[in-house]
Amino acid sequence: MADLRFFEKEGPFSLGELASRIEANVHEGSDETISITDVAPLDSAGPDEIAFLDNPKYVAAFEATKASACIVGRKFVDKAPAGIALLVSDQPYRSYALAAQCFYPTSCRPSDTFGDASTVSPATHIHPSAKVNEGATIEPGAVVSAACEVGSGAVIASCAVVAKGTTVGRDSYIGPGASISHAHIGDRVTIHAGVRIGQDGFGFAMGLPTHEKIPQLGRVIVQDDVEIGANTTIDRGAGPDTIIGAGTKIDNLVQIGHNVVIGQGCIIVAQCGLSGSGEFGDYVALGARVGTIGHIKIGDGVQIAARSSVIHDIPEGQRWGGTPAKPVREWQRELIALQRMAKDYGKKKGSTA
Amino acid sequence: MADLRFFEKEGPFSLGELASRIEANVHEGSDETISITDVAPLDSAGPDEIAFLDNPKYVAAFEATKASACIVGRKFVDKAPAGIALLVSDQPYRSYALAAQCFYPTSCRPSDTFGDASTVSPATHIHPSAKVNEGATIEPGAVVSAACEVGSGAVIASCAVVAKGTTVGRDSYIGPGASISHAHIGDRVTIHAGVRIGQDGFGFAMGLPTHEKIPQLGRVIVQDDVEIGANTTIDRGAGPDTIIGAGTKIDNLVQIGHNVVIGQGCIIVAQCGLSGSGEFGDYVALGARVGTIGHIKIGDGVQIAARSSVIHDIPEGQRWGGTPAKPVREWQRELIALQRMAKDYGKKKGSTA
Amino acid sequence: MADLRFFEKEGPFSLGELASRIEANVHEGSDETISITDVAPLDSAGPDEIAFLDNPKYVAAFEATKASACIVGRKFVDKAPAGIALLVSDQPYRSYALAAQCFYPTSCRPSDTFGDASTVSPATHIHPSAKVNEGATIEPGAVVSAACEVGSGAVIASCAVVAKGTTVGRDSYIGPGASISHAHIGDRVTIHAGVRIGQDGFGFAMGLPTHEKIPQLGRVIVQDDVEIGANTTIDRGAGPDTIIGAGTKIDNLVQIGHNVVIGQGCIIVAQCGLSGSGEFGDYVALGARVGTIGHIKIGDGVQIAARSSVIHDIPEGQRWGGTPAKPVREWQRELIALQRMAKDYGKKKGSTA
Repeated sequence: MADLRFFEKEGPFSLGELASRIEANVHEGSDETISITDVAPLDSAGPDEIAFLDNPKYVAAFEATKASACIVGRKFVDKAPAGIALLVSDQPYRSYALAAQCFYPTSCRPSDTFGDASTVSPATHIHPSAKVNEGATIEPGAVVSAACEVGSGAVIASCAVVAKGTTVGRDSYIGPGASISHAHIGDRVTIHAGVRIGQDGFGFAMGLPTHEKIPQLGRVIVQDDVEIGANTTIDRGAGPDTIIGAGTKIDNLVQIGHNVVIGQGCIIVAQCGLSGSGEFGDYVALGARVGTIGHIKIGDGVQIAARSSVIHDIPEGQRWGGTPAKPVREWQRELIALQRMAKDYGKKKGSTA
Repeated sequence: MADLRFFEKEGPFSLGELASRIEANVHEGSDETISITDVAPLDSAGPDEIAFLDNPKYVAAFEATKASACIVGRKFVDKAPAGIALLVSDQPYRSYALAAQCFYPTSCRPSDTFGDASTVSPATHIHPSAKVNEGATIEPGAVVSAACEVGSGAVIASCAVVAKGTTVGRDSYIGPGASISHAHIGDRVTIHAGVRIGQDGFGFAMGLPTHEKIPQLGRVIVQDDVEIGANTTIDRGAGPDTIIGAGTKIDNLVQIGHNVVIGQGCIIVAQCGLSGSGEFGDYVALGARVGTIGHIKIGDGVQIAARSSVIHDIPEGQRWGGTPAKPVREWQRELIALQRMAKDYGKKKGSTA
Repeated sequence: MADLRFFEKEGPFSLGELASRIEANVHEGSDETISITDVAPLDSAGPDEIAFLDNPKYVAAFEATKASACIVGRKFVDKAPAGIALLVSDQPYRSYALAAQCFYPTSCRPSDTFGDASTVSPATHIHPSAKVNEGATIEPGAVVSAACEVGSGAVIASCAVVAKGTTVGRDSYIGPGASISHAHIGDRVTIHAGVRIGQDGFGFAMGLPTHEKIPQLGRVIVQDDVEIGANTTIDRGAGPDTIIGAGTKIDNLVQIGHNVVIGQGCIIVAQCGLSGSGEFGDYVALGARVGTIGHIKIGDGVQIAARSSVIHDIPEGQRWGGTPAKPVREWQRELIALQRMAKDYGKKKGSTA
């Protein structure tokens, strides 16, 4: 069970109620009236708890589990140990996520950091021209500047700075110490601690003796349901805007350059670096530490392996990897060939030495 | 046009006045009295706006532009569409930068984030022994500690922390949530949000059972006209100082280790990592995510390709790339040879399998 | 000598007293009563100062030094210039660290940033239910939330945010602008500026049209004597905790994913990225910018070269490097073979072209 010092717990729920909330069905023969108190992993779950099984690797743990109930895919139903209740789901991991959200409803969107939910602390710095809507929380030490607007249900955490003119949508969360300027933030956006949005892009007309700064005249538009990880940096556009599409999830310590346009539902893992003016389609997935050069075009649904350096445009739907990145099959073939050649070379040299 | 919610606009300017401010000349036959209201790209510029052309790729856009005026290099003058006014410049991109600065003069140096320019907010934390010079702006939630000095025209943005003894020069900007200690910051320096300057370098006498910490007894010296990107970290020296030379521009999420000395006018793109005690000459350019080992010496004017790992000293004026980095021509030749060899190897194996 | 604007200096100490405090012995014939005023490098040390020699590279500097005293290993004793006093140590660099700590005792643990040591500023935001123990320092603009506890001797620096429920041990330091939630921080821990601890791990059940967020129900446990570098991010566990073992030292801009467990005394250099659920033994050393994939197991005492990408488990005591990482000898052999092959290939092509 999660540490109740940090998490608020709800429940118990009947199996039937859970089923209706997590896109799953009560398996025939399972008792929908039993009471479930918590989620837990297969191997540590006890009576009254619900686990899940999605990966064949864990079938043995499933067969041995002490959980009262389990969320499973249809194909695992006949592996169920005697007496366990089953919720059958087409997407067991997703159903597990929804179940965990039932028991810990405030765990997914930080409601506040200070502990005085839903109030505007007198210890904040709110400019008289800012509009803070009813039901927003501004925590101690937070700063809301001139002409800003903060939506209902939004939280501006302690020491976060919302610079002049910036708008924050409804039910969005701006984490401790984050700072946002020249930006419009949508609804239900989660911006974690230390994120930097809207500062100048890195634009200079290089020359001697001085590099002349190019005014950065665009903004950052963060659409609804985006999540942005701690200490990530997103520069504002140079003229056009930098745009993060709806439902895109960005991990920690990512750098996003000016004018980058990211589509909907993308996944960008930690420490990626997206150079200026790149265009990314919908549902693109970048593994950890991927780097892309400027002005690149990445199609819808493209997946790029962790640590790759991308210097060519990628058509939609493809999987690429490597430095420089190429289609995954080609990259893997090349890697293996080079390793074998190096080994052969070593042997040959050894035999003639 | 830039969003006036975020940017203050000036103008219009006559073509002649612009010419005199952007290091360009009015082309013969162009009317220097026409009024220009804004800068814009060639393809979206309208009447009364000025665009620029620097890259042959955009000649077609030039020929079709609806802009009233354009900044161009001499070689493109004869491609000009009928009726357009021309400003001829040796460095059209630089002249464009200067023109954009004319129309948006406050866009290049953040004047403030809160919206009460040029005041010391009562909601700041200023130590009685600190000296804040006339005309400095200390924003709400900013902290200026004991024995600090803040120059005239400088801005300490909300929730920035200037630790004890640190000095900030005239017209410098310390962004929201940045923190600076053990440092002297020059004039006209821009430090973006979340930058960390002056914390301990990573120095330990490693051993069992504990690693003994080496006191870090140096400082960070940031010379005039430097710009430092969001969430970049610069450690103070271990004994000598860490030094960032005048006019050097550093992008976001860069790590600079203790004792590093960087010359004048360098360009360091995002996510680079400079290990301790490295020495970099003047006008060195590091592409994104370059890493250098400790105690390295990089000569004046060296250029290093993005993503390279540098483990050898580089003489002045050279261009290197790769991991480990070598002269660019050698690196490219090696890359191509390896790709071809891998392909040949695959074919051979295929034919004998 | 260190700049007294930033550092508090103690001493002088007699040679004998120093010896007793730095795990060294006064060499026979050296006068233990002489007075030492400071530490300094061999080449710049003057009378009354003590230097150290650990590396044969610096024997010439040792022979020419003007220092009154020097910390040396036994093997260098007979190279000593006439008249110098010697402290003989089995670990000269460690003894130097201890000597520097004698002269600059506050340099290793930031005592405060504002300049009003050992007080709770009225300009802080402390929740009524938080417990701040006697002798803790809460600086202006710092936030201590509901149900937190801050140990005696701890410092919460300006604009740092300790979120609800979090505990900070005795004599620990939370740097300016850092934020910590869902965490227990041990004793004598140093957390530098801008560190982010305890935010959500990056967990989603990916799908169309939306990625479902997995509640992150664990915590971050930071054991005693850990040091964490500026702007580093450590996510809380998804169910189990993320754990940083005692005495581990982490550099700047490192990313540590959810559920990672790091043993004691590890060294993790700047810009490393440790993916979720990795397990690291004791005294593991990761060079700069090492990346490890999820669920990896790295044994005790493993050393990994800078910039390596680790995708396989590594047994204890081994040294690995490369992308993908392999045992160092194998990696080096492969690197050399590939370089030679590429060169040979170039020549062959040249001769037949």
